[in-house]
Amino acid sequence: MSNLQKITRCLISVSDKSGIVEMAKFLEENNVEIISTGGTYQLLQKNNIKVKEISQFTNFPEIMDGRLKTLHPKVHGGLLTVMSDQQHLSQANDNNIQQIDLLIVNLYPFVETVAKTNDEAEIIENIDIGGPAMVRSCAKNFAFKTVINDVLDYQILKDELTKNDFATSFEFRKKMASKAFYVIAQYDLAISQWFNKDQYFLTGNLKQHLRYGENAHQKAGLYANSNTGIVNAKQLQGKELSYNNLNDANCAYELVLEFDKPAVVIVKHANACGVCVSDNIFDAYLQAFNADSKSAFGGILAINQEIDEKLAKEIVGIFYEVIIAPKISESALMILQTKKNLRVLIADFKNDISSQIKSISGGFLVQEQDLKNFDKKDLLQVSKNSVDDQEIEQLIFAMTVCKHQKSNAIVAVSNFQTIGLGIGQTNRVDACEIACSKASQYLAKKNNLQNLSADNYQDLMMKEQVYLASDAFFPFADNIEIASKYGIKAIIAPKGSMRDNEVIAKADELGIALYFIETRHFKH
Amino acid sequence: MSNLQKITRCLISVSDKSGIVEMAKFLEENNVEIISTGGTYQLLQKNNIKVKEISQFTNFPEIMDGRLKTLHPKVHGGLLTVMSDQQHLSQANDNNIQQIDLLIVNLYPFVETVAKTNDEAEIIENIDIGGPAMVRSCAKNFAFKTVINDVLDYQILKDELTKNDFATSFEFRKKMASKAFYVIAQYDLAISQWFNKDQYFLTGNLKQHLRYGENAHQKAGLYANSNTGIVNAKQLQGKELSYNNLNDANCAYELVLEFDKPAVVIVKHANACGVCVSDNIFDAYLQAFNADSKSAFGGILAINQEIDEKLAKEIVGIFYEVIIAPKISESALMILQTKKNLRVLIADFKNDISSQIKSISGGFLVQEQDLKNFDKKDLLQVSKNSVDDQEIEQLIFAMTVCKHQKSNAIVAVSNFQTIGLGIGQTNRVDACEIACSKASQYLAKKNNLQNLSADNYQDLMMKEQVYLASDAFFPFADNIEIASKYGIKAIIAPKGSMRDNEVIAKADELGIALYFIETRHFKH
Repeated sequence: MSNLQKITRCLISVSDKSGIVEMAKFLEENNVEIISTGGTYQLLQKNNIKVKEISQFTNFPEIMDGRLKTLHPKVHGGLLTVMSDQQHLSQANDNNIQQIDLLIVNLYPFVETVAKTNDEAEIIENIDIGGPAMVRSCAKNFAFKTVINDVLDYQILKDELTKNDFATSFEFRKKMASKAFYVIAQYDLAISQWFNKDQYFLTGNLKQHLRYGENAHQKAGLYANSNTGIVNAKQLQGKELSYNNLNDANCAYELVLEFDKPAVVIVKHANACGVCVSDNIFDAYLQAFNADSKSAFGGILAINQEIDEKLAKEIVGIFYEVIIAPKISESALMILQTKKNLRVLIADFKNDISSQIKSISGGFLVQEQDLKNFDKKDLLQVSKNSVDDQEIEQLIFAMTVCKHQKSNAIVAVSNFQTIGLGIGQTNRVDACEIACSKASQYLAKKNNLQNLSADNYQDLMMKEQVYLASDAFFPFADNIEIASKYGIKAIIAPKGSMRDNEVIAKADELGIALYFIETRHFKH
Repeated sequence: MSNLQKITRCLISVSDKSGIVEMAKFLEENNVEIISTGGTYQLLQKNNIKVKEISQFTNFPEIMDGRLKTLHPKVHGGLLTVMSDQQHLSQANDNNIQQIDLLIVNLYPFVETVAKTNDEAEIIENIDIGGPAMVRSCAKNFAFKTVINDVLDYQILKDELTKNDFATSFEFRKKMASKAFYVIAQYDLAISQWFNKDQYFLTGNLKQHLRYGENAHQKAGLYANSNTGIVNAKQLQGKELSYNNLNDANCAYELVLEFDKPAVVIVKHANACGVCVSDNIFDAYLQAFNADSKSAFGGILAINQEIDEKLAKEIVGIFYEVIIAPKISESALMILQTKKNLRVLIADFKNDISSQIKSISGGFLVQEQDLKNFDKKDLLQVSKNSVDDQEIEQLIFAMTVCKHQKSNAIVAVSNFQTIGLGIGQTNRVDACEIACSKASQYLAKKNNLQNLSADNYQDLMMKEQVYLASDAFFPFADNIEIASKYGIKAIIAPKGSMRDNEVIAKADELGIALYFIETRHFKH
């Protein structure tokens, strides 16, 4: 049902005038009568395009500083007539209403005005009334009328008209009407938000229907509200991304984005199981994988450097769900292609979450993302013992990883590699015990030492130099005791406990270097 | 700056006609000239209210089945005139535009029509054009004009007019204009969503500015989009709720809502640390607390029964951040009031999350909530060993708790009390080991048995009858070996592993009763 509708009369009223002269010329050359308003009228006339002023069309003057020009039954009647209804047609005829087949309108720049000024009068004057009214009339009557309200659609309109002997199809008109209502809704949302500062609006466009959500009985979808990040990553190959793939990929991506040097992150269930920063990406990968090879199985791999052939060969030996990188060499891609199911994503490695939303019963929480970074000057030495600059970097690395793990989180690292992650625990002692115990087991395995006694674990850990980060302050000194039992060399933690002094005293007593930072890094 | 504006002429055009006759009578009695359209005009006339037809006012007929009645410069000029501008006033005068001081409009029931029919023509006819145009004109000109577009505001309007000798204040007009733009935005969103099925909109009203988000350097807010749940719980006392309080409270609330019998949930960091269902709420509380008294410190307590004096006395002995209950007796409240900082919430114990949103880089994921419940018929016995009906209930209890913990999650229970939670782990073996190890330590402590050997742990666990739930299938049989080592009696897990047969064979080999369910319950 193409239901072609011939275009013989057009009303043009645009705030953004880019491309409009060319568009109008095209219409004029094809014998379309053009009606226009205020500034648009003047611009078209200056460019020698034949154009009728709106006041001539309505027999009513443009008055009140342009507030009143198109809000007239001759305009809206010309847009709203049901062309298949004889009564409508005769009523139009009786009231000298001429049909308007095509409407090209864009709106006063309300959002742009709000962005550049606090002048209430200027902002209010930029609430377009006539434009949205026309767009809504024309879009409602898409069965017969064509509305264009995006400069980017001029070429599409030209193609449509050229294809159809200067008519438009039903499908085209409905598509443009859908877009028009979308633009109007966004426009009205912006106005509402300016008036109602206490409202929150989130809008997004479906990027992908997902097969299901976290589990098969939950429906789900992926929505974009920018052009960047994981949502807009390009999938080069592999099975369809699942909800959990996307969530995990985002966790891996946000963490790997923290590092400038070659870095690899492996994520399982929204927590890292292996992270490494190194001088070259190949070593970083090997150590991230070795950090917890059991967990890495079926993991999500984020790499902040180009994947080359050598690295690709290493990667394909392991089962991963998803790989994310900024770039992949051609030869590397050919290797990855041997694993048909493996999802390979190229992302732009920009982080773009303006705010984080968490749904809770009856509504939702909104917060800014945790974008706090650390460097040496953020660390305050509170113990007698200290560590050198290179070791300070180890502490910063550990805290950077810790910031992205589910709380309570404690992270043990050695040589810029995670070796023990104590995460998602309901008390900090458990988190500390798990992190240290995993670290000692990792080092024992690495050094082919099985069945070590507690004392030997401590010696081994001290020899390998292990550093610990805690995402929040230590409420009691007991965590320091656990760390000492396992031979931890230095610890980084937020300050703020009522018992900070006891914690510091215990570190001094046990010879651990302790550094405080100002900011806590809970993540749930 | 009250800037009072006298009301002498009103335009009324309402789709929802409730209360309008009374409202119009009030205006008529106070010498306001009333103009009206179509059905509203007829209703007012039938009720002997003096009213002028819109076509008389505009000198233009109502045509095209009502599509064209108010889209006229005499209407919009009457709404848009800047009353302080002499040029506007003389232009109005020159063009016979009479001022409209008050606009009472509500819109065609678009949302209601979409809800009740799939008839496209009927839906499109219910896209109101004239109404929104007038509301937007009047709301833009709130400096001088008054717009009412909610039936619930008639009484507020009456009060305002009575108070101000039939004028409205600037503050009132701006408030009503803000509301009008909010209603228009919601209306246009609904239309846009009907046309553009691939768009997602979330809107909410600020319920509370939060001091900060998960951490002090993150701004945050709480928004409501319904009247129920945690967001709308009534806070009876205590410090201001924080972001983390609300998030944790929601986790506790959603879990405790699962149970019909007296149940208590204690949450720390978005995971449960103690859950118990019992015949009476006092015992349920004691056992939920004892399950992990170390973690319970500073926890969030959700109780699905009235808190009485006896329970309150027990609760105040422990430091909790938040308590949530459906009801608290007066004497219990007096006891809780002795802890001034303790946040006490009364909630309606209804769950109301239509969909869950998770922000990721570049957009967001949306999914349905996991509302799947289980009963006996959902459990499939796959091992040779079986357990009795009461023990089946233990398995269902364990799985219900497991469903609400961060994945990978494994939960050990005994006597409808959680005794070991292995949560948020990157591999299932770690989750299983943590759950079982915590369970055995709990039972050893409960029985005053310290330093047990592994064999004795097993005996103790077998004596106490411990049941295990896993939120997803076991990829390998190794988890069953761990469970057996710790003396677990029966296990519930989703089916679906490629190695389900190996898992079942191992359960049979080790004499564990194993039950499968169809649905996985990941939560991240």
